[in-house]
Amino acid sequence: MSDLIDPKGGALVIANARTPNGMPLDLCLEGGLISSFAPRDDQGSPGVERLDAGGRIALPGLIEAHTHLDKNFIGLPWVRNETTSVRAERIVNERRLKRELGVDAGLQAERQLALALAHGTTHVRSHVDVDPEVGLESIKGVIAAREAFRGRVDVEIVAFPQSGCLVWPGVAALMEEALRLGADVVGGIDPGTIDRDPVAHLDLVFGLAARHGKPVDIHLHEPDELGAFCLELMAERTRALGMQGRVMASHAYCLGALPEKRLATLLDTMAQAGVAVMTAGPPGMPAPSVQRLRAAGVGVCVGTDAVRGFFVPYGSGDMIERLARVTERNGMSRDEDLEAAFGLITTESAAALGVPDYGLHVGAKADLVLLEAETLAQALIEPPRDRIVIKGGAIVAGTPA
Amino acid sequence: MSDLIDPKGGALVIANARTPNGMPLDLCLEGGLISSFAPRDDQGSPGVERLDAGGRIALPGLIEAHTHLDKNFIGLPWVRNETTSVRAERIVNERRLKRELGVDAGLQAERQLALALAHGTTHVRSHVDVDPEVGLESIKGVIAAREAFRGRVDVEIVAFPQSGCLVWPGVAALMEEALRLGADVVGGIDPGTIDRDPVAHLDLVFGLAARHGKPVDIHLHEPDELGAFCLELMAERTRALGMQGRVMASHAYCLGALPEKRLATLLDTMAQAGVAVMTAGPPGMPAPSVQRLRAAGVGVCVGTDAVRGFFVPYGSGDMIERLARVTERNGMSRDEDLEAAFGLITTESAAALGVPDYGLHVGAKADLVLLEAETLAQALIEPPRDRIVIKGGAIVAGTPA
Repeated sequence: MSDLIDPKGGALVIANARTPNGMPLDLCLEGGLISSFAPRDDQGSPGVERLDAGGRIALPGLIEAHTHLDKNFIGLPWVRNETTSVRAERIVNERRLKRELGVDAGLQAERQLALALAHGTTHVRSHVDVDPEVGLESIKGVIAAREAFRGRVDVEIVAFPQSGCLVWPGVAALMEEALRLGADVVGGIDPGTIDRDPVAHLDLVFGLAARHGKPVDIHLHEPDELGAFCLELMAERTRALGMQGRVMASHAYCLGALPEKRLATLLDTMAQAGVAVMTAGPPGMPAPSVQRLRAAGVGVCVGTDAVRGFFVPYGSGDMIERLARVTERNGMSRDEDLEAAFGLITTESAAALGVPDYGLHVGAKADLVLLEAETLAQALIEPPRDRIVIKGGAIVAGTPA
Repeated sequence: MSDLIDPKGGALVIANARTPNGMPLDLCLEGGLISSFAPRDDQGSPGVERLDAGGRIALPGLIEAHTHLDKNFIGLPWVRNETTSVRAERIVNERRLKRELGVDAGLQAERQLALALAHGTTHVRSHVDVDPEVGLESIKGVIAAREAFRGRVDVEIVAFPQSGCLVWPGVAALMEEALRLGADVVGGIDPGTIDRDPVAHLDLVFGLAARHGKPVDIHLHEPDELGAFCLELMAERTRALGMQGRVMASHAYCLGALPEKRLATLLDTMAQAGVAVMTAGPPGMPAPSVQRLRAAGVGVCVGTDAVRGFFVPYGSGDMIERLARVTERNGMSRDEDLEAAFGLITTESAAALGVPDYGLHVGAKADLVLLEAETLAQALIEPPRDRIVIKGGAIVAGTPA
């Protein structure tokens, strides 16, 4: 990162950029914020650094809304995947692999954060396993990685009971301890099929969240009406606790498999309760329709989920590539739809996750990615390899010409 | 391509390669064929060139079983996609774009072939539009591109009535003329929803094929039972005309949407008739299960379909990347499944398309791609960028160290 520019408290002027819809754009970044869009003529002055964006398109730094920093094989020799396709068996297999291979959650988190940053991601929400075997070691590792990347990538940590928290004695206490150590969000998983008691699971998760004043983010793979029932229970608890806008249903496959009338009612319930949805656009699975969620007023965001993970080996860690999977999955082909889709990894995602001071406006955090592309739609279809990434007003990745 | 090696009638010895399952491999290529797997000690002799594969994995040259060389925007300024999602409207829009933009089918075919070759593809089956507006111009353009790439990529041309051949007077005669000009395969499309008469459409297509001694390859997007009925009609005509092994159902979405018992019977009918299936693993659509096709004894192969096409902008032109989409779509994650999946773009595809003398055995055509990867599964998940491509015993793309 030898060519990186850090104004060290001064201003960074970005000249010759373009807006997402292709208009000329000059930005001035000061004090970690976007301070103006006016061209400046004091670019030679002391304390004012200048970057010629060469016509690149400026977007707010990309948001990864759902991944697992603690369990990937990035940078390691290839590990053969010999898992079954049954989720419960995959979870058991994963615990075995973590134990046998001694994968260092902190090191792997750093590797994945470096990959994310190179692709323009400046905010990551990561679920981190809390289970009876790994205890709090993964949480501690990812907290350390978060410190190592402070000022380059913001990391939200979800205390995630991958193996369930009712079926394993002690996991609930570990989750509580994870929140004290620095986890930001209370996780949950399949209240019925994994934890065997939807009401008790959700009461536990929402109870923890309410006591600690934290948001909730639940992996929901439950099928059909079981999934719909769980979403209703989540909406009820969200309203009862006044947690509107702080609850995420991750995956929510059931929303891709419900009859039309049932779907409409459920989405309305979710919109009123302020429960948002994260989708990774899974191929060959039922999945929520982005268009339907948006039309119903349900918040929606995109995550890569696994990147060279233990369950499945797929995933590059590039939010733009993942977004293209989601748009293709949702049948989007028109340029205007592809351009609007970038909201799913920028502004809409920030709203769904509650990321403050985010966007391409004066006063927003100076977190940006500059993309070399003819248009934003082209950037989606042919993701540019070299991206200039700016965090808190300093260039933190990429090589300006 | 300055570093390319052409033995010019002599032998090319490839040392230090690996088999698809990772065992050491030496190959000798002579007279355009794989002549032996024994190491040779005459590598300094006149007429014997040597390539150190550096441990790369050798595969037969990749096969692209289904694309549209005549209509892509590769290498052109970005064209905004403003189509609807309705196929019939997309087809009308596409005819308009071809007319208004004056896209040169021959030039675009060459651009896509260059892209395919760089990714290790040495055999391409391309559907080429024959319609009332473009007439035979696209066929002539792609025939010229085929000549330009002779000795580097083998190109099969399908005379393809994209807009239908019954609903447009004169298209059937144009297809016949395309076959005389050099098209290799008789195409067809949606006998019901596009051409409005399943029996008449299939009689026309199979009739042309029988008279000219050519194979058949039909785009079949027909839904559910209409699709199943068309597949039955195709199987009946295949058996009646003795065309077993020479008929392809491309896409065949309906096979992903039929009830279990109906599917089993239909696949049995197709297997007995020798009707194969091409799939591109479309996201968010019903699609045939690769595992079910294989288990039923139905031939199966993979194509990229569009690459920066007029309907949809997605597609990179890389068969390995496309294969990963198909495997993920089919829920394949285990290394042994991913490794076996390469058959879908190599040996199984050759069988489905009727490509002769193909494979990694003595006497097979010396068409190879050498992949730098730890294992074949890793090559699928992290497709190597630099590939050495060998056609007819000469290196035709890639940069050996």
